[in-house]
Amino acid sequence: MSTSPADTGTTGVLEGVPLLDHHCHGVTTADLDRSDFESLLTESDWPAPEGTTHLDSQVGFAVRRHCAPVLDLAPFATADQYLRRRCDLGGKDVSERLLRASGMSDLFIETGHRADEILDPVGMAAASGARVFEIVRLERLAEELVGSGCGPADFRAAYDRLLDDRLRTAVGVKSIAAYRVGLDVVTERPDPARVDEAVAAWRADVAGGAPVRLADATIIGHLLWAAVDRGCAIQFHIGYGDADVDLHRCNPLLLTEFLRASRVSGARVFLLHCYPFHREAGYLAHVFPHVYLDVGLAINYTGSRSDEVIAESLELAPFHKLLFSSDAFGAAELFYLGALLFRRGLDRALATFADRDGWPASECRRVAEMVAWRNARRAYRLDDARVAPAAAAATSGPLSDGPR
Amino acid sequence: MSTSPADTGTTGVLEGVPLLDHHCHGVTTADLDRSDFESLLTESDWPAPEGTTHLDSQVGFAVRRHCAPVLDLAPFATADQYLRRRCDLGGKDVSERLLRASGMSDLFIETGHRADEILDPVGMAAASGARVFEIVRLERLAEELVGSGCGPADFRAAYDRLLDDRLRTAVGVKSIAAYRVGLDVVTERPDPARVDEAVAAWRADVAGGAPVRLADATIIGHLLWAAVDRGCAIQFHIGYGDADVDLHRCNPLLLTEFLRASRVSGARVFLLHCYPFHREAGYLAHVFPHVYLDVGLAINYTGSRSDEVIAESLELAPFHKLLFSSDAFGAAELFYLGALLFRRGLDRALATFADRDGWPASECRRVAEMVAWRNARRAYRLDDARVAPAAAAATSGPLSDGPR
Amino acid sequence: MSTSPADTGTTGVLEGVPLLDHHCHGVTTADLDRSDFESLLTESDWPAPEGTTHLDSQVGFAVRRHCAPVLDLAPFATADQYLRRRCDLGGKDVSERLLRASGMSDLFIETGHRADEILDPVGMAAASGARVFEIVRLERLAEELVGSGCGPADFRAAYDRLLDDRLRTAVGVKSIAAYRVGLDVVTERPDPARVDEAVAAWRADVAGGAPVRLADATIIGHLLWAAVDRGCAIQFHIGYGDADVDLHRCNPLLLTEFLRASRVSGARVFLLHCYPFHREAGYLAHVFPHVYLDVGLAINYTGSRSDEVIAESLELAPFHKLLFSSDAFGAAELFYLGALLFRRGLDRALATFADRDGWPASECRRVAEMVAWRNARRAYRLDDARVAPAAAAATSGPLSDGPR
Repeated sequence: MSTSPADTGTTGVLEGVPLLDHHCHGVTTADLDRSDFESLLTESDWPAPEGTTHLDSQVGFAVRRHCAPVLDLAPFATADQYLRRRCDLGGKDVSERLLRASGMSDLFIETGHRADEILDPVGMAAASGARVFEIVRLERLAEELVGSGCGPADFRAAYDRLLDDRLRTAVGVKSIAAYRVGLDVVTERPDPARVDEAVAAWRADVAGGAPVRLADATIIGHLLWAAVDRGCAIQFHIGYGDADVDLHRCNPLLLTEFLRASRVSGARVFLLHCYPFHREAGYLAHVFPHVYLDVGLAINYTGSRSDEVIAESLELAPFHKLLFSSDAFGAAELFYLGALLFRRGLDRALATFADRDGWPASECRRVAEMVAWRNARRAYRLDDARVAPAAAAATSGPLSDGPR
Repeated sequence: MSTSPADTGTTGVLEGVPLLDHHCHGVTTADLDRSDFESLLTESDWPAPEGTTHLDSQVGFAVRRHCAPVLDLAPFATADQYLRRRCDLGGKDVSERLLRASGMSDLFIETGHRADEILDPVGMAAASGARVFEIVRLERLAEELVGSGCGPADFRAAYDRLLDDRLRTAVGVKSIAAYRVGLDVVTERPDPARVDEAVAAWRADVAGGAPVRLADATIIGHLLWAAVDRGCAIQFHIGYGDADVDLHRCNPLLLTEFLRASRVSGARVFLLHCYPFHREAGYLAHVFPHVYLDVGLAINYTGSRSDEVIAESLELAPFHKLLFSSDAFGAAELFYLGALLFRRGLDRALATFADRDGWPASECRRVAEMVAWRNARRAYRLDDARVAPAAAAATSGPLSDGPR
Repeated sequence: MSTSPADTGTTGVLEGVPLLDHHCHGVTTADLDRSDFESLLTESDWPAPEGTTHLDSQVGFAVRRHCAPVLDLAPFATADQYLRRRCDLGGKDVSERLLRASGMSDLFIETGHRADEILDPVGMAAASGARVFEIVRLERLAEELVGSGCGPADFRAAYDRLLDDRLRTAVGVKSIAAYRVGLDVVTERPDPARVDEAVAAWRADVAGGAPVRLADATIIGHLLWAAVDRGCAIQFHIGYGDADVDLHRCNPLLLTEFLRASRVSGARVFLLHCYPFHREAGYLAHVFPHVYLDVGLAINYTGSRSDEVIAESLELAPFHKLLFSSDAFGAAELFYLGALLFRRGLDRALATFADRDGWPASECRRVAEMVAWRNARRAYRLDDARVAPAAAAATSGPLSDGPR
């Protein structure tokens, strides 16, 4: 097999650069069987068709290539060999190996999804050695309130209190409006009277036995605008995810009206993942001063093709608007691959630009640091004196040093 | 001109791999003049502007580069030289040369489009040496029924019988809902009473002199759900085609609701062509266990750029969900180019992955075989004992051998 | 840093090829301060966030890399060094240096946007040495009429006269329907009575103190169809621009109905910029004989990534349908970069095709000339005896020679 010199170009500027993962979740430390493991390495909610495996995919090949050596196996060990070794070592050891090998300095963990199955922030800090900050899922707050009996008379006030309380420690919030109602209905601030009516209707549904699941556009709009009023860092799920999304309603351009209306608020908006709409997201980050993006999730799931996805994210988006995330959930492999593929892809993109246009190494390094951690620190205001990690391992350095 | 080493990398793993073209049409054996030939090498319904030619395009250059040598001409013979030689050899000889040089082992031929101008399955098997299987166009079945006087009282029962009859030999069905009504209206199963009403209205139009052309969303929905009920392999035209489509209504994401509703039926859904929505199609193939895709048509029409289109199709789509097709119609050149450009593009994508991530040759070969023919055989259930080719040349090997 | 041989391949066929920029604006000759300069090098309407700069972007790096040497600075001079040198030389000298270094032979200047801040066609011809042709902005004509008191009784007749008058010298018209109403409402010819009603309503708004800004779909439809009736060359803003656009309403596919209805009129339609919908635009240029496209604007703003954008525009679009534009406005840097990056990107795309498929140098040269100027001359009918430049410098050669 001949080599492809275009791909071997590297700048080396990512070496030793810390990595701030501004959107991820906890990992499991359970011993995973084949079926559990496959389900954590796909966005599909179902098994692969008979005779096939979810691991015959970019992410599956990336695990076999890159994670196998972390578990002392040869690259491209078979899936069965990998799973056997994973069980032999034990889920806890494997997760720590992979997390620590990822070299992340800071993790922003969103805690609203299947929290009982995965490590909490304290556990993640201990397992990874990274500082951990918390991101609050807005829809989850509303579900907590309505699930515990909160009705239209007190919902808005109770939500205000709960949000304020959580923001004492959290560095930002996240919305899954894309999953629940589609981004096309996220627009102007909703009328309070209509919010109350919607809460009453939801409460009645729940009283009638419906699951406590928020899928009302008016209420979600209210949650978002309360966050805007507080000048929050607001993350939005954008683009692809599991089979629950209507992907054509997850195009970030559908947020244009919301972005216009929120521009002067002090809030900052973080468009997560974005694939296959990352060019559209880059446009929004270009024209709106408060909009940021990453291509997390897509990096892991496009594997050997992630170089191209990362390079495409470096078109319209200013270099001070791009962030890194892994969107890892459950399998520690996704942290390790997210970090490895991101470092590699950004490095190769910079090497190409250096080759084409003579970008100096100092400028490549500066852009790399911006994307790897500096943009996130600035945009989330981590240097604000009131911000402290939700959890940090004994080995974590002082925050004032910046990411290690 | 300097060489581009990145492009010269090949794995060689496609050598000798059979090719199953799961979506194509018959070819003409007529002697084509310049105008006829140009019209077969474009999706445009009109001549090129004065002073220009449809052959100044990727597909036109690919014909001159790759097909000219099959006709004993030098690469990049002029279009006139090519047409003269094509006439000298005669349409029948040229078509056989190109079909046989394509090295296809199996062809799934859709017979519902301009069938009187092209070879039928038996003719295609004879001309190509490949086994031929039939795909039935659903809208055409309904048009046959209503065109021969079938009305609302008996349409549904007659359609059931006709579909069952055709499925005795066909391996799947195809819908051109994208052309006729747009994919946004293909959703849940329509109410039978509404189907009958729509048939009555259509029948009245036809009685009043309108052409027998099905463009009613309710009826098309009925045709599709009858196929779902039978657990069929269902092909959908997706993405670009001729000027008759509203391309923004051909985005495969518009099928999301239909895919959710049909997931447990046993039916499999094949998204054809998909360009420029192949990344969106890859997402659907990733999350829905019964969804497959190809980038046929786009391969031929992007020519020297088809490497990139093929590589882009290898992102979210699991490797067991990608198929090969040429979507060739009329000109045998499109079979030859479809096969050549697909083999080359897949090989180069695999070579890049091998270079970036050390994919072993055995894994490259396994992925190549999956995409080239194994996925189609599995997904269309060709190994089911009841399935036999509609036509096979005397030189075709036994089906139980798998593709030659 | 290792080199990337794939990118160093060039055909050399662009050397000495003239460049016809079919869509641009005038430049300023003012001495620009940092803030003014930054605002001309972004599509954002606002300053970059505190602690950041719009010049940390592809276009900012391209200026530092490629424009600095034109001002006698080393590549990658800092932004401050660049601005200081720019002021020392003076805005007039800098603009002339950059314009002349761009090597453009012909400029089609659209004069309807902030005309008081930039050079007019005569000034542009003098500063650049190029021939200058005028493009008329349709919405501006209507605004002139209604702003000067024209009401529903005489609007249509007055517009007819004004358009005819302007077309005596202009080579085409442009519409910003995408900005004002979205492309989804540009369809069939509107009813004259509805046009009159809409003009009356607009006139009343203006009389009531509203700014004279046309944002009515019916009136814009009328302006467009009057241009269609005259068989004009009609440019459409497509795809990205500033924060004023709803980008999801700027997809060129939304024009499909308009394109079908205007196909036989003799009018030609030019889709400008198109990013990130350039593949969709390529489809329209493929199937509709009267549709053309460029990827101007995106070339400048994607900088080191413009090679990929240009290559992507060479897929479905026939080679006789692609044009060059810079869409430069205000900063002469955008002319220089537009020309440089276009020449480089087209050359590299052709080098890749030559490498992959042996495109002969003569064919590469022919395609390069088509895209660089021949397609525009043919499609805009510049060789029609009645067409003369609106302005030409003393150094401009005779028109009958074709571009220099």
